[in-house]
Amino acid sequence: MMKLYGYWRSSASYRVRIALNLKGVDVEHVPVNLRMTEHRQSAFKDVNPAAAVPVLVLENGQRITQSLAILDYLEDTVKEPSLLPSTATDKAVARSLALLVACDTSPLQNLKVQNFVKSTNPHTEDVGVNWANHWITEGLASLEATLANLPLNGTFLFGDQPGWAECVIIPQLYNAERFGVEVSNYPRLSALQTHCLAHDAFQQAAPENQPDAPAL
Amino acid sequence: MMKLYGYWRSSASYRVRIALNLKGVDVEHVPVNLRMTEHRQSAFKDVNPAAAVPVLVLENGQRITQSLAILDYLEDTVKEPSLLPSTATDKAVARSLALLVACDTSPLQNLKVQNFVKSTNPHTEDVGVNWANHWITEGLASLEATLANLPLNGTFLFGDQPGWAECVIIPQLYNAERFGVEVSNYPRLSALQTHCLAHDAFQQAAPENQPDAPAL
Repeated sequence: MMKLYGYWRSSASYRVRIALNLKGVDVEHVPVNLRMTEHRQSAFKDVNPAAAVPVLVLENGQRITQSLAILDYLEDTVKEPSLLPSTATDKAVARSLALLVACDTSPLQNLKVQNFVKSTNPHTEDVGVNWANHWITEGLASLEATLANLPLNGTFLFGDQPGWAECVIIPQLYNAERFGVEVSNYPRLSALQTHCLAHDAFQQAAPENQPDAPAL
Repeated sequence: MMKLYGYWRSSASYRVRIALNLKGVDVEHVPVNLRMTEHRQSAFKDVNPAAAVPVLVLENGQRITQSLAILDYLEDTVKEPSLLPSTATDKAVARSLALLVACDTSPLQNLKVQNFVKSTNPHTEDVGVNWANHWITEGLASLEATLANLPLNGTFLFGDQPGWAECVIIPQLYNAERFGVEVSNYPRLSALQTHCLAHDAFQQAAPENQPDAPAL
């Protein structure tokens, strides 16, 4: 069985958990406690020298890092259901929505960047959260405006099943709520979130439903 | 003919220019002056509401944003030469190297983030460049350590032709040099840069060789 190194609250791990559920692929989950900096310890850096989760370990021991590369590996090796729309143009649009989150939003609000911002502004209150809030607000505004230009029809972005873009957008909306950005300000994203969170694949992948999440 | 909105010094535009050259695809280049904030003006926001380059405009007028989604569109529609290795695992590894740059390094050092850091620390000298330098140093160290674990054989990362990962890594090395990070500290990256910069597709895509680059 493949193994997935991840962390309950890592949005990149959350993306991969959704994709695995949508494709019906079981893996062994190996928690890496980012708050306790387990990812920077040598045992984990042997798994991924970039000190980041998620990492998918194949049955032959080969390792795939980066959530979107893992999605591509799953898409290449488990054809059905496909997470991508059928035409080259729609595929590229689905990928671009995911990348708008994965490149232009999520990296700017993650834990290591917040910690660095705090370390360089030690006397400013809430500087990490305010930094995250700034970039998430900009990212969601860009995403909402981009969705407004798309000919969406169906419950999800590309028809009646969620896919690639939803795997990446929903974890970002979870982070928005963590850092005080109101998802309800973005009507298209808010409606998409409602539909996705009612779907089993998303519920089972949710941070609070992972074994390594702290008890409430 | 397709149109590419880009900017000579944008590393995401540079990635797409290399890919177009490797595949032998001609496009009409439309410069967007990021320094003059043309990307935030309404004329360009009609093209991309996320106010970012590159944007590929297809012959039917449809628009693809995000450099890596554009690479995927080109890969889907112009099969030869493929920019990706042949096996699912190697493909995912090539993608993961590109994403280590595109998600974990480049977004943290780009112009809008440097400008925001400067605006929040107006009295600290060199704060933007120091910020960029910090994240590029961390990114290149992760990339070099990741390459050290790969069974590389050939002039380029996956054989004797450059592809997907090189399209993304080389523009990041250009930015490293701009912001005072010594590429020679990373022997694998430095050797790869030497090979790529000797290749026509990379030379023609280089920032200084674009029509919108300022005269020396």
